[in-house]
Amino acid sequence: MSDLAERMRARIERLYPICRSITGDGVRETLAILAESVPLEVRSVASGTSAYDWTIPEEWNVRDAYVADPSGRRVIDFRAHNLHLVGYSMPFRGRLSRAELEPHLHTLPEQPDLIPYRTSYYTRDWGFCLSRRHYDALGEGPFEVCVDTTLAPGELIYGELVLPGSDAGEILVTSHVCHPSLANDNLAGLTVAVELASWLAEQPRRHTFRFVFAPGTIGAITWLAQHPDVVPRVQHGLVLTGLGGPGPLVYKRTRRGDRPIDHAAAHVVAAHDGELRDYSPYGYDERQFNALGFDLPVGRLSRTPHGEYPEYHTSADDLSLVRDDHLLEALGALQEIVEVVERDAAYTNQRPYGEPQLGAYGLYPTTGGRAASEAVMAMLWTLAYSDGATSLLAVADRAGLPFAAVRRAADDLLRAGLLA
Amino acid sequence: MSDLAERMRARIERLYPICRSITGDGVRETLAILAESVPLEVRSVASGTSAYDWTIPEEWNVRDAYVADPSGRRVIDFRAHNLHLVGYSMPFRGRLSRAELEPHLHTLPEQPDLIPYRTSYYTRDWGFCLSRRHYDALGEGPFEVCVDTTLAPGELIYGELVLPGSDAGEILVTSHVCHPSLANDNLAGLTVAVELASWLAEQPRRHTFRFVFAPGTIGAITWLAQHPDVVPRVQHGLVLTGLGGPGPLVYKRTRRGDRPIDHAAAHVVAAHDGELRDYSPYGYDERQFNALGFDLPVGRLSRTPHGEYPEYHTSADDLSLVRDDHLLEALGALQEIVEVVERDAAYTNQRPYGEPQLGAYGLYPTTGGRAASEAVMAMLWTLAYSDGATSLLAVADRAGLPFAAVRRAADDLLRAGLLA
Amino acid sequence: MSDLAERMRARIERLYPICRSITGDGVRETLAILAESVPLEVRSVASGTSAYDWTIPEEWNVRDAYVADPSGRRVIDFRAHNLHLVGYSMPFRGRLSRAELEPHLHTLPEQPDLIPYRTSYYTRDWGFCLSRRHYDALGEGPFEVCVDTTLAPGELIYGELVLPGSDAGEILVTSHVCHPSLANDNLAGLTVAVELASWLAEQPRRHTFRFVFAPGTIGAITWLAQHPDVVPRVQHGLVLTGLGGPGPLVYKRTRRGDRPIDHAAAHVVAAHDGELRDYSPYGYDERQFNALGFDLPVGRLSRTPHGEYPEYHTSADDLSLVRDDHLLEALGALQEIVEVVERDAAYTNQRPYGEPQLGAYGLYPTTGGRAASEAVMAMLWTLAYSDGATSLLAVADRAGLPFAAVRRAADDLLRAGLLA
Repeated sequence: MSDLAERMRARIERLYPICRSITGDGVRETLAILAESVPLEVRSVASGTSAYDWTIPEEWNVRDAYVADPSGRRVIDFRAHNLHLVGYSMPFRGRLSRAELEPHLHTLPEQPDLIPYRTSYYTRDWGFCLSRRHYDALGEGPFEVCVDTTLAPGELIYGELVLPGSDAGEILVTSHVCHPSLANDNLAGLTVAVELASWLAEQPRRHTFRFVFAPGTIGAITWLAQHPDVVPRVQHGLVLTGLGGPGPLVYKRTRRGDRPIDHAAAHVVAAHDGELRDYSPYGYDERQFNALGFDLPVGRLSRTPHGEYPEYHTSADDLSLVRDDHLLEALGALQEIVEVVERDAAYTNQRPYGEPQLGAYGLYPTTGGRAASEAVMAMLWTLAYSDGATSLLAVADRAGLPFAAVRRAADDLLRAGLLA
Repeated sequence: MSDLAERMRARIERLYPICRSITGDGVRETLAILAESVPLEVRSVASGTSAYDWTIPEEWNVRDAYVADPSGRRVIDFRAHNLHLVGYSMPFRGRLSRAELEPHLHTLPEQPDLIPYRTSYYTRDWGFCLSRRHYDALGEGPFEVCVDTTLAPGELIYGELVLPGSDAGEILVTSHVCHPSLANDNLAGLTVAVELASWLAEQPRRHTFRFVFAPGTIGAITWLAQHPDVVPRVQHGLVLTGLGGPGPLVYKRTRRGDRPIDHAAAHVVAAHDGELRDYSPYGYDERQFNALGFDLPVGRLSRTPHGEYPEYHTSADDLSLVRDDHLLEALGALQEIVEVVERDAAYTNQRPYGEPQLGAYGLYPTTGGRAASEAVMAMLWTLAYSDGATSLLAVADRAGLPFAAVRRAADDLLRAGLLA
Repeated sequence: MSDLAERMRARIERLYPICRSITGDGVRETLAILAESVPLEVRSVASGTSAYDWTIPEEWNVRDAYVADPSGRRVIDFRAHNLHLVGYSMPFRGRLSRAELEPHLHTLPEQPDLIPYRTSYYTRDWGFCLSRRHYDALGEGPFEVCVDTTLAPGELIYGELVLPGSDAGEILVTSHVCHPSLANDNLAGLTVAVELASWLAEQPRRHTFRFVFAPGTIGAITWLAQHPDVVPRVQHGLVLTGLGGPGPLVYKRTRRGDRPIDHAAAHVVAAHDGELRDYSPYGYDERQFNALGFDLPVGRLSRTPHGEYPEYHTSADDLSLVRDDHLLEALGALQEIVEVVERDAAYTNQRPYGEPQLGAYGLYPTTGGRAASEAVMAMLWTLAYSDGATSLLAVADRAGLPFAAVRRAADDLLRAGLLA
């Protein structure tokens, strides 16, 4: 296992046991771990603050939560698995019959061994999640129920990392931090995002890269509400999620579907035998960034999307679901996408009257009659379409060549004075 | 069998025996039967009247027509089947040898049991149609031929029904009334059109609906010539024909192919697993309405089109070819198309900055973590694309949802103040 | 075998043995043979003349070339096959060991019976090509090497034939003359081009047709440099090559891909069950004509393109590879393409209000009820779309009818006054 893979795996192993939600100490702890690798700044917004149509809720924390049987034995225990407690469960204590407890229990009858993931952020309620087999064995009660949580004025926090570039335009990369013990969704996204940021910190940068690690929906909307100055500068964006689970890379287009990030990602993901999908207004925070009032060109990179793999939002989305080779490939694809958006440009052929005599510039094999190499083909395609408006990415797509090959050809031609 | 199916079937059973042509008493009788269900007005135009490149012909009526053998026995008899007589046969009486009779006989050698349907509207001639087996058994004659028809100044008539709407725009629905004992072509179209009109008479209407029951080609051109004021108001149109025969629904696009009626019909017909076809200048009266000088957006709804089913234009297009479930499905599809053209509109999202908190408007399930319902998805799609220009039909097509679901979502969002 | 096929075959049999290159006596001899059939003019440009990024090289001629073994026996002999000598080999004489000779030998290890075709136009070098079996049997030497060539100031020549038309616009047809004993590439192109020119000389012509028979790359660029006045008048162009070898017709689109010649050729080639390909900047002289600075709409017609058949650029591209029926079909397709570009036009329907009564103009069968003929359908399609802007080719493509049928229909309708 490479150092890189080992680092990504170690990070998600530390993050996995933490109970995260849209607010609370779990997010604080998570951001602190990410900040060990990259200089994140943690921003906080107080409960009650408005963010467009939403309001920051009270902060939620859990001290303990369980259901005990008549003998006092904990038959459902938050300490055993944080998915057992419905997210944002309000405090409750009481003695309930099985019938009274029933409406507060959530199971997956068709996946009887798995605990579901459920939340109740905006309706005051409490509940427990458990496997169907577990549920069938609960007994008749009566039960002592303890939901020892706090819901109190506090704050919503998110992490932000800005890597300045030479131009004013920004590239936004976001990944949600609000899911508890679910590994692919989204510790995989977080660990890849952190490595992408570390790598970018060492690169020359044209765009400013802004990484946002925030809770889903309310976190993204809060970030948008707090950054009216940044929004107009976002030229490309990506939401990263589910990058370690099953299936090939899947790129979900922006709402308009034909933004530069869509072309860049399509080029790279196709080369990885990945899938391209049109926008839909359901999913992760791309739906906030693409909302009509912002209209940001933010696509999404994942593997098999939410709801399409059986482990999704269950206790089976555990550390074993995340593959090291999948994390590495995702990081590689992101670096390639970054290369396209950073280095794509349109040039003008300076010798447009027929083909220049490439041999005279040291750019052509000397014996004729054989097939041209990829390097020569990349130069010929670049010369054929460099009319000052057609970008290298468009040339690469038309030629069926990797962007990197066309970019190298353009660099050679620029040095030879054949492009400008 | 439902009342509706029974009513449609009873109507075509009464209409089937009547000898119709582009003029004559058969059309009068047919329109009178249709007028029992809907308040049709019958309009007449005198023989000799010009209609663009055409002239209303003399009126044709049949008293009797037969071919008798030397013993006086009628061996071909119009009274046995009205397809036996070539439409618009001129009067004739004479004694003919078999050889002299031959050029006036029409058969289908490859479908030896079927009588073909033939006409000779604009060339003065007469003839008889018969099955090939019948023809082979005719004997040698000589034959006494009687074509006791009249061709005399009279009138072309058509039926028209106008259901006014709140707006000035019109929707034109036409169906041809000129075919004799052929059931699918076009008693099926007529009976469905009458039920559509009955249903529409009871609905609130935005557009004015105009139903025209006219003979093919000359009837449609005459209607166009007589309604220069209506032509510019036609916003959508449909020709209805062959709706009870074999095969799935088939929508034929307008000449330009991208009119609103094309999008509406494509949406509905696809949901019925039907077929979409591009325009061709051959077929029914869509070719008149779409002619360059009018350029009306008139599509055509049928099942397997003319010429593509073996019973077409033969005596096998009889009552048994028309299926009740096919008539009912066609009527249902037409009502859905009407719903789209009547209720499609573009709205503007009033909370465009991120997703509105639907739960706060009572529009969202309260426990998170599960897949969204069709109703929620329809709202999210509508909000995501309602930019004041994108219509609900476009949203539905993009979302892969039924128009009705998106329309309901828009109604909910309008009530909640989230759309305007 | 038809006279035409016999003539085409006889021409390539005479041309086959000649040693051609981008300059030299072989090209002179070749153009002289072509000029026996059509009044070609031969133009010459002196060595050292500039042509954009290129310079006309010294003229190359071969007196003799061989490798002899210690006994004096010629073991590689230019006189046996002109492919044995690398094109543009510089003069050389010497006694070489096998090891010293090796870098000057070219073989095809994977096609051990075939001699490759190699050139070294712009790098001063010399070499021999031979089959791998031949190479394996060469012995150890030492060898006496004789390359008795001349490289001296002279000229580059090309043939040009102009067939004036009634309009100013030109159609450019080019075919390369620089390949030695390779039959499909390109004696096949040359013999078809000559027959096309002979046929055109007898036709009425709207466009001026200009045939250019020039060496590849440097010849095309030289022609472009010498005809700045003609370049702006070129409305359509075709490069002809490889028309007698294996496979169906293949049309390669212009760089922009949507020029009139692309539509014309696509229509014709599809009817021949041929293939359409997008532009690529590699291949024959289409890459010079389509270069950004000229941007000429020049497509290419071939059969299986260069590099895709195993005989390509080897001694197996001999007379047996060229099929007479393939030459004839290619000529026929070119005549059809010429008919489209010469006779395509947009007309205006003069009776646009519904369908004209075609019977009254003698243009319609008189008995109704049967399917329409191709001739009638062609008229209906032409009337349906002749809005003054839609061309007959567009009508034919939409109708799925041959251009010739639509052209005949338009001629009939023009005569009847229904089009103008």
